[in-house]
Amino acid sequence: MSSSYGENLKLTIFGQSHSTAIGMTLEGIPAGHCIDMEALKKFMTRRAPGGASWSTPRKEADLPEFLGGIVDDTTCGAPLAAIIHNTNTRSSDYEELRRIPRPGHADLTAQIKYGGFQDVSGGGHFSGRLTAPMCIAGGICRQLLEKEGISVMARVLSVGGISDEGDFSEPLDDKLFPVVSDERGQMMKELIDTVRAEGDSVGGVIECVVTGLPAGIGDPMFDGMENRIAQIVFGIPAVKGIEFGAGFEVARRKGSENNDPYRVTDGKIVAESNNAGGVLGGITNGMPLVFRAAFKPTPSIAKEQKSVDMKSFQNEILEVKGRHDPCIVVRAVPVVEAAAAIACYDALLSRKKEI
Amino acid sequence: MSSSYGENLKLTIFGQSHSTAIGMTLEGIPAGHCIDMEALKKFMTRRAPGGASWSTPRKEADLPEFLGGIVDDTTCGAPLAAIIHNTNTRSSDYEELRRIPRPGHADLTAQIKYGGFQDVSGGGHFSGRLTAPMCIAGGICRQLLEKEGISVMARVLSVGGISDEGDFSEPLDDKLFPVVSDERGQMMKELIDTVRAEGDSVGGVIECVVTGLPAGIGDPMFDGMENRIAQIVFGIPAVKGIEFGAGFEVARRKGSENNDPYRVTDGKIVAESNNAGGVLGGITNGMPLVFRAAFKPTPSIAKEQKSVDMKSFQNEILEVKGRHDPCIVVRAVPVVEAAAAIACYDALLSRKKEI
Amino acid sequence: MSSSYGENLKLTIFGQSHSTAIGMTLEGIPAGHCIDMEALKKFMTRRAPGGASWSTPRKEADLPEFLGGIVDDTTCGAPLAAIIHNTNTRSSDYEELRRIPRPGHADLTAQIKYGGFQDVSGGGHFSGRLTAPMCIAGGICRQLLEKEGISVMARVLSVGGISDEGDFSEPLDDKLFPVVSDERGQMMKELIDTVRAEGDSVGGVIECVVTGLPAGIGDPMFDGMENRIAQIVFGIPAVKGIEFGAGFEVARRKGSENNDPYRVTDGKIVAESNNAGGVLGGITNGMPLVFRAAFKPTPSIAKEQKSVDMKSFQNEILEVKGRHDPCIVVRAVPVVEAAAAIACYDALLSRKKEI
Amino acid sequence: MSSSYGENLKLTIFGQSHSTAIGMTLEGIPAGHCIDMEALKKFMTRRAPGGASWSTPRKEADLPEFLGGIVDDTTCGAPLAAIIHNTNTRSSDYEELRRIPRPGHADLTAQIKYGGFQDVSGGGHFSGRLTAPMCIAGGICRQLLEKEGISVMARVLSVGGISDEGDFSEPLDDKLFPVVSDERGQMMKELIDTVRAEGDSVGGVIECVVTGLPAGIGDPMFDGMENRIAQIVFGIPAVKGIEFGAGFEVARRKGSENNDPYRVTDGKIVAESNNAGGVLGGITNGMPLVFRAAFKPTPSIAKEQKSVDMKSFQNEILEVKGRHDPCIVVRAVPVVEAAAAIACYDALLSRKKEI
Repeated sequence: MSSSYGENLKLTIFGQSHSTAIGMTLEGIPAGHCIDMEALKKFMTRRAPGGASWSTPRKEADLPEFLGGIVDDTTCGAPLAAIIHNTNTRSSDYEELRRIPRPGHADLTAQIKYGGFQDVSGGGHFSGRLTAPMCIAGGICRQLLEKEGISVMARVLSVGGISDEGDFSEPLDDKLFPVVSDERGQMMKELIDTVRAEGDSVGGVIECVVTGLPAGIGDPMFDGMENRIAQIVFGIPAVKGIEFGAGFEVARRKGSENNDPYRVTDGKIVAESNNAGGVLGGITNGMPLVFRAAFKPTPSIAKEQKSVDMKSFQNEILEVKGRHDPCIVVRAVPVVEAAAAIACYDALLSRKKEI
Repeated sequence: MSSSYGENLKLTIFGQSHSTAIGMTLEGIPAGHCIDMEALKKFMTRRAPGGASWSTPRKEADLPEFLGGIVDDTTCGAPLAAIIHNTNTRSSDYEELRRIPRPGHADLTAQIKYGGFQDVSGGGHFSGRLTAPMCIAGGICRQLLEKEGISVMARVLSVGGISDEGDFSEPLDDKLFPVVSDERGQMMKELIDTVRAEGDSVGGVIECVVTGLPAGIGDPMFDGMENRIAQIVFGIPAVKGIEFGAGFEVARRKGSENNDPYRVTDGKIVAESNNAGGVLGGITNGMPLVFRAAFKPTPSIAKEQKSVDMKSFQNEILEVKGRHDPCIVVRAVPVVEAAAAIACYDALLSRKKEI
Repeated sequence: MSSSYGENLKLTIFGQSHSTAIGMTLEGIPAGHCIDMEALKKFMTRRAPGGASWSTPRKEADLPEFLGGIVDDTTCGAPLAAIIHNTNTRSSDYEELRRIPRPGHADLTAQIKYGGFQDVSGGGHFSGRLTAPMCIAGGICRQLLEKEGISVMARVLSVGGISDEGDFSEPLDDKLFPVVSDERGQMMKELIDTVRAEGDSVGGVIECVVTGLPAGIGDPMFDGMENRIAQIVFGIPAVKGIEFGAGFEVARRKGSENNDPYRVTDGKIVAESNNAGGVLGGITNGMPLVFRAAFKPTPSIAKEQKSVDMKSFQNEILEVKGRHDPCIVVRAVPVVEAAAAIACYDALLSRKKEI
Repeated sequence: MSSSYGENLKLTIFGQSHSTAIGMTLEGIPAGHCIDMEALKKFMTRRAPGGASWSTPRKEADLPEFLGGIVDDTTCGAPLAAIIHNTNTRSSDYEELRRIPRPGHADLTAQIKYGGFQDVSGGGHFSGRLTAPMCIAGGICRQLLEKEGISVMARVLSVGGISDEGDFSEPLDDKLFPVVSDERGQMMKELIDTVRAEGDSVGGVIECVVTGLPAGIGDPMFDGMENRIAQIVFGIPAVKGIEFGAGFEVARRKGSENNDPYRVTDGKIVAESNNAGGVLGGITNGMPLVFRAAFKPTPSIAKEQKSVDMKSFQNEILEVKGRHDPCIVVRAVPVVEAAAAIACYDALLSRKKEI
């Protein structure tokens, strides 16, 4: 199922960019957990558009209304269901997309798959706006993980060719531009300003670290932590790659360089390095789980682009109207945290299945 | 479920490195397809150990025995079931691993997850040997895709820092060392010989291309082609990263560079470039599907390594006995093809569900 | 997952009796189908409370609001999502149920499973009210089946010991009391009036017939038509038994009586009888699919009942307040149709998966 | 997936009546459980053909060979895989079935579904022989439940119109003809002898009781205990109905008769009666879980039957050759126990998922 995820949890995401509402259902959260609604709103605000120079000027509150699954903010065992009303619905700006697909978007592929019946307004079900319901689910899972001493934190690792610097060991929830080095962040922001002025966009990499995960979580083969996280992270629009620990760098290395030797430290077994990114054989080893996701530049750009007319089979020049995020990476940071939190909490729920 | 995969297909892989047999069941293959057993054996021989200098000297036939699902080599609609008997079972070489985990292997994580009851012999269920049943399933799916005009081909893209060169557009089934440039392949082989002589190992990257896939295959969000392929490819031991199309390189680019413009060519809509790797919004666009997977160096090396005693919590020096592949990448090429073929055929089976 | 169903479809039902809303998401409906909203409303009205003497006086419109998945009443390929707002929320009438469970209800079992955090108001997620979202999904599937020439029809087969009579071959959508013999229906209504006057309730049997299903639908073993239908029909509260074709009666028969002999009639192969209820080996044979579900009497009765205090472990006498349906069977008729329609449409979607 | 079952467990059954082997894989059994192989063999012998007058004379050992998942008879966390070799393969007796379907069998439906490619020998994947692998999985689950103090026991409740008598509270593993009243059993055996002599067969009902199940197991709506058990029990060939607790009898009752009043007894909350069969709202209430399954008479009878030629569309008279069980019900008793044990153990594995 395309819009569902999970093993012990079952997340379903619904709605389109301009439908009455977008939302999610989340089954499998145990009863009796109080959800901190203020913290959830704060979490969701991190992905909300508006304000900052690197994001779209369209401003929406994007705060969830819970329809079921909680009583007095406490989970009751029934599926969680929450929606965000779309205030900005049924626009006629997009009808042209049924004819002239935007390069880099799903317009062409949706046209073929759905025979022209897809909802084209604002990208329909393919819109980045659908990451908001993922943040409802992920924000809740992240809270529940925190109760267990598990922190899920992400940062902008690079924008264009500019990389962040410094040790990443604390959540950056309070930073509008979530990097460790604000100096590097400033350079990234300037690059974003430049590409926006050019009517262009730019890509980047987000790094996510999960600390406090107990060893022994995840499963071999197709349900390892890498598989689980990859499956949900590729559900975030614009992601084109994912790597764990040393990632693609392992391909250049020797085994003697890449293996993480074990040592006993303070009576605990730890690895001296973390090239594995906290996962061996699909299962956590107690080291921080580390992964990075590559985001392509926003395909919506102001510059003219070559496209085609899918009806007449003529070449066309397309000018994408409206204003768009020149760099999606910043707003995607909490989305990556949400995805990681859902995957980790889902895996953690298997922990005590033993009889 | 950790050892199962698929939406329309359901693949289950079972067995351990030294159990009576390893095998697979594969539900969902339509009835009436004749399986070319000779072609399947030839496909499986490509991953079989033995002979070449870059692989382990342990030699096993690794040819499947079918228990069910076929009549006269033709699928009958019942689940396919096939096994490979392990001739090399119950060794006592491995008991030490229950105490002293090999760095880079799943010994530690399995010990914690399974409370010491895991099968340690030869890596148990975590062994690379379990990729043989994946090749049974994948070899069958690859044949069925070929009937549809769809080719699944992979190559060694790099070993250590040495990269292949040249245009990759034909399957390399007949090459023992599957690279486009044999000159580059020779350099890679020399590097592998060197690291083996050092008692070390080396990693690499495999690139896979699927041509002929119709546009419109795959689903948005969590069941896109990228999600599906990532989920199964991370089921191959040693994979630490995956990227599609331009992959991590997109993070350095501008939208105007990365978007693939559409043009009408010979009456068909094609993209002028393929940075998307054939997938937009999770759905194929008719261009070749392209991905790359990063493989870490074989963790089993002859060199002494630092480890610990999990019982006494003392530091230890570990010497891994036996001989192992100094570079798993070459033998993993058909495994990546198998994984891609399973994912693509599974997605293709959804195509005609429409009523 | 407790509140999800389906193979090609994925239905999720959410909400509680007194939460903000109840609703459903339904993935997998192909794009391009126009939903007849008037017909859907008419279908849902058949299960709506209000008016008739055999149902509860609480009156709610229960008409769905679509949040996503359709554009201009036409499916767009994204998950369908629809809700019904609860106008009647957060009542304090039910707090006692957390202490004194109603016999025959899920109060005790929910208390144990959810540790006292379950939503007790109106039965929470266990309420018969949750069959309304099932009717949204089922009403849509029933429409789509009709387009294929497949009719899903149910009737009250018996109430208490009183059975319907006559040949059941046409939908009874237009009857308020859906029986073939109105005379028998009158007798049933009188029985219902009597038990209501006694402060009691009464059970019954619903029979469902699906005509027009092509032969060859369904799968052997665990995904046969019987398994699929049973799984969803037991999701309707109060169902305690299900039987197909001759049902429990087969246990008294000889093979020579129970086998349905084949004959060629008008150039078609048909069975002379339908003891199999249209299903052999889990797969449809082209005869009408026939099943019956037994509904227990509504557990909520006005009469005093013996119960316990789950906190103090004292015996108690319970008097259930409010007014309830003295016989749920009449209103459950469209719910059974909805369940059957979902199961049949889901199975039908597998039909053309063949490559 | 047609041949797979389970939520926390994942059971796959493969093979055909006359393929090389039949078998099963079972994922999700926790590591560290020692399987009593002698007890498993004894359990499987209860369904094995041979010897008794009421079963087929074909005699096969039907004992499982484990291929993976255990080390020294102890589960190791990898999927369990076990097979039974078919000694009796590739017969030519059955080719006629591709042309003339046996009434009451899946011959016609398989022909349509699989386009004539189905394995017809001995019924192929539809054969009752496939219940042997279900007994491997179920026998293991039954052992694991026993460790938890949970007993799964079934009996022949009736054959033809003859019913067992007496209180059913102990497993009948040691009885060749598992009834409480041997006198009634004798009457049933005589009936079976009579119908066999007539070249006919007879149906019956099996009752299954699970004692010791803790309260709070199972889920609301589609994953309740009734749904779970029904889904697997309809996977046993010949089952045409299932009912829980008072079953179809509830349809004749009033609420005041059918509700099970609670009382405090010996400091525990118990129900005074068990019309619910131990399940309310899909969740166990601590009372014995009770269900009954109706088995149709073996469709294979020696008597001549009316059938058709599927190629020429001519009426035919069919005489089914070979000897068959005149009453499958006796041998199905351990199969029903197996099915119930799998469903209950699977549900129990969810118990401790809470974080």
